[in-house]
Amino acid sequence: MRTSNKINAGRFFEDFTLNEVIQHATPRTITAGDSSLYIALTGSRNPLHCSMPFAQTLGYSTAPVDDLLAFHIAFGKTVPDISVNAVANLGYADVRFLQPVFVGDTLSTSSEVIGLKQNSNGKNGVVYVRSTSVNQHGEPVLSWVRWVMVHKNNADAPAPETFIPDLPVFVAPADLNIAPLFSANNFDARNTGGQYFWEDYQPGERINHPSGMTINDSDHSLATRLYQNNARLHFDGHAMQSSTFGKRLVYGGVVISTCRALSFEGLENALSILAINAGTHANPCFAGDTIYTFTEVLESWELPGRNDAAALRLRMVGIKNMHPAEISEIKQFNSYHPNVVLDLDYTVLMPKRNHSKGNK
Amino acid sequence: MRTSNKINAGRFFEDFTLNEVIQHATPRTITAGDSSLYIALTGSRNPLHCSMPFAQTLGYSTAPVDDLLAFHIAFGKTVPDISVNAVANLGYADVRFLQPVFVGDTLSTSSEVIGLKQNSNGKNGVVYVRSTSVNQHGEPVLSWVRWVMVHKNNADAPAPETFIPDLPVFVAPADLNIAPLFSANNFDARNTGGQYFWEDYQPGERINHPSGMTINDSDHSLATRLYQNNARLHFDGHAMQSSTFGKRLVYGGVVISTCRALSFEGLENALSILAINAGTHANPCFAGDTIYTFTEVLESWELPGRNDAAALRLRMVGIKNMHPAEISEIKQFNSYHPNVVLDLDYTVLMPKRNHSKGNK
Amino acid sequence: MRTSNKINAGRFFEDFTLNEVIQHATPRTITAGDSSLYIALTGSRNPLHCSMPFAQTLGYSTAPVDDLLAFHIAFGKTVPDISVNAVANLGYADVRFLQPVFVGDTLSTSSEVIGLKQNSNGKNGVVYVRSTSVNQHGEPVLSWVRWVMVHKNNADAPAPETFIPDLPVFVAPADLNIAPLFSANNFDARNTGGQYFWEDYQPGERINHPSGMTINDSDHSLATRLYQNNARLHFDGHAMQSSTFGKRLVYGGVVISTCRALSFEGLENALSILAINAGTHANPCFAGDTIYTFTEVLESWELPGRNDAAALRLRMVGIKNMHPAEISEIKQFNSYHPNVVLDLDYTVLMPKRNHSKGNK
Repeated sequence: MRTSNKINAGRFFEDFTLNEVIQHATPRTITAGDSSLYIALTGSRNPLHCSMPFAQTLGYSTAPVDDLLAFHIAFGKTVPDISVNAVANLGYADVRFLQPVFVGDTLSTSSEVIGLKQNSNGKNGVVYVRSTSVNQHGEPVLSWVRWVMVHKNNADAPAPETFIPDLPVFVAPADLNIAPLFSANNFDARNTGGQYFWEDYQPGERINHPSGMTINDSDHSLATRLYQNNARLHFDGHAMQSSTFGKRLVYGGVVISTCRALSFEGLENALSILAINAGTHANPCFAGDTIYTFTEVLESWELPGRNDAAALRLRMVGIKNMHPAEISEIKQFNSYHPNVVLDLDYTVLMPKRNHSKGNK
Repeated sequence: MRTSNKINAGRFFEDFTLNEVIQHATPRTITAGDSSLYIALTGSRNPLHCSMPFAQTLGYSTAPVDDLLAFHIAFGKTVPDISVNAVANLGYADVRFLQPVFVGDTLSTSSEVIGLKQNSNGKNGVVYVRSTSVNQHGEPVLSWVRWVMVHKNNADAPAPETFIPDLPVFVAPADLNIAPLFSANNFDARNTGGQYFWEDYQPGERINHPSGMTINDSDHSLATRLYQNNARLHFDGHAMQSSTFGKRLVYGGVVISTCRALSFEGLENALSILAINAGTHANPCFAGDTIYTFTEVLESWELPGRNDAAALRLRMVGIKNMHPAEISEIKQFNSYHPNVVLDLDYTVLMPKRNHSKGNK
Repeated sequence: MRTSNKINAGRFFEDFTLNEVIQHATPRTITAGDSSLYIALTGSRNPLHCSMPFAQTLGYSTAPVDDLLAFHIAFGKTVPDISVNAVANLGYADVRFLQPVFVGDTLSTSSEVIGLKQNSNGKNGVVYVRSTSVNQHGEPVLSWVRWVMVHKNNADAPAPETFIPDLPVFVAPADLNIAPLFSANNFDARNTGGQYFWEDYQPGERINHPSGMTINDSDHSLATRLYQNNARLHFDGHAMQSSTFGKRLVYGGVVISTCRALSFEGLENALSILAINAGTHANPCFAGDTIYTFTEVLESWELPGRNDAAALRLRMVGIKNMHPAEISEIKQFNSYHPNVVLDLDYTVLMPKRNHSKGNK
């Protein structure tokens, strides 16, 4: 018996070339099962994603799947090619939700290398990719940039020319995509239970969301497998025993989704995510941790050409094992409080008060 | 950064008014994913809910979803408005299953306050609500009464006039609803594997169901989130550390569903739940507990105008960490045995022997 | 209150008769929810089962469900009648995947007793059954033989005449069923990410699949319940405390599915399972164990009348808590290494290089 090497070890730093496009494997048809599992995994109560009739009052043909479910499924496909040899996921930028995703849609994802910078130690470097997920009609539904630090396999491989892409601090209001048929003119807030509309949120205010959610081992394993994200540190408890952490890490996308679902209380009318502007997984999260979250309102934007709804730029901070009311400063001297697990800058769509049915 | 208060704290005792109707948020379209998850969460083997052809032999257009899945989903919607400030869930009565629920149906739930009684301590009171869940055609599919003890927020708020609704001890046979197209004339017991029919069950007999099911942390978390029941004591392990229990509690609906699924062995032909007459969560259940159950036959009823099937009123007792054969008296001096977790009085529909195919 | 005995205790050794056919309960309609759960439970990335457009390029009308999902669901139905009183599951043989199974199909399973042999101790015996699962059109989709050692209930019951069926060591290439419309002529390997085709795998080579998967308590409980397999040793933690193992056992089908999903890395183009030739659960697996796997290529077969794809007979070995690179001999003196949990001989369908699109 001879051991063959048919394992795709994934790309190392020297294997990435500026402007190359990588087509990722495993196109994925989204099903009603995925949506149910997403509710079971997060407890999301946003009616846009679980009520067909409500979605239809907003102009959709049926209920679109949760924005983050689509994002995590699309993102998972990039892992084997982009980040399997990553030392660290350094950041996200310019994450755009371009089209709603419905049950029956098939997402296919590719990534373009848009930046490269070898680190001065010569052992690794930073790779910037823009990933795009298209549906079965070839229409882009999601687009995002992330950058990861990746090992070199051969330390003697020559350094590529450094190129750092120009990335926006946030997706500008004019660049936000709203589903073409969307209208909040018939929005009825009894479906969300939310009393507050776009006009009620002011930059500078903070909302401490009251509920906490303990992440169980199966919860994050099921979620990460559902997204077909095969990064081993989330699954291989045996190997992780000898890691710095001593145990499996919870996938950052699970933390994002948990915080988003917890933030429903106080942001009931934040119907859709339009963009993720930036994101940091400040500290690791493990099974057994209880996640809480608070939201800061960063900016409030009218949207060009529409009166029914507008945008809020929010900062969603995830905290483990400590209630948000107990924490005021999440950073000291540029270093995160040890209980902070997520610092996410994102933009949501929210109906305006005066254009929503029954709220006049 | 100023902390705003956009959190809906839920109603306190003084916020409820007799006869007011509360429309609950998050209408919910039931999907095939919900049904699969329900099987994965309970192990239910009732073919009525998992076999389209079998359901069609009974007159249904397709397989209806499990009665308790529909109930838990509908019930979950009432939690933010009714019981988020509850001290205790005191009881259920008059739970009626009015119409089958199918994949694709959307349930919307409202509650009417039908009774109020401030407690003599002046700190809390009992609220009685009748909740009704309607489908997308506006047809009632579920209706139930529950009563909860709710804190007052302002101890000085005046006591409302006491009104205690008249509640039936059980739903009378004439009030039971059978799906209009249902017929057991073509019922073939090979689909359930059950050898016993309505005529075989006699009031006074007890069935010790042999199997036990250990509830894992993820099991109950996934179920309770699927039902979009956001009662914090089921999820927030950090906060629950400082509670009386020291840990999260399993949602009572999970216990009911587990017992119902375990009771399949010995009640294979109890096809549908027609009513829940009364229910008590006698002791708390925690992750790691193994649930067993036994059934007592309370009454045996013919149903007006039909010969194919009839009703059994049953008492389903849930026990933790002790086999039903080891326990005879579940109550002493009106106090439950510490291992009893559920005492549920409910009514099922069961085919009659002589009118079922191939059993003559 | 008198305890009645309406519990079906299942068949004991003396209850089986040669050539009798047992129709199992609970026909089961497969749904999109089952497929999503299967991905969430295993992390499978095989695009044939999760991408409608990819499946259509291979001639299918839509994506068939995972071969093992269908097998576990069909198998689960046999447990109450065949193995509930089993001392041990001794083996599988001649497992044939006869037709693809699609969402909406309903599987009904029956078993024929094809062999009986009482053990010399007079206390138990071996029962051989051939089980067949048919879809709603009555077409066989799965067929398999297994043999189990079953207790006698009455030690004095006479021994049946011994009959041991003739079983093939493996399903011969001419007996393998390929879906009639299947063609790999338009197979595009970018969908699987696999670089290797049928011609690249040679008998005698071994592939150490790199990833490990820790099995959580909820993972295996959810899976086994989804399959409606009610064997108590997987669920009843209270009763299992007093067993040899002291805790619940993971269902062997969960181990098979985990290994199959882990073996995707290195076998990306092994699209379908055509047969399981033999299988042994070498040692028990418990929650908390991390599963790894390696594959040995046993045989490489052309398939009669086709040039687009061919078959590989593989040996998939599951190992717990030890990386495959650390283990060379899995058996010593006919006894399995204590970390080996699975030894499965199976046959897969893989496209040939020269007949696949874009790989010439």
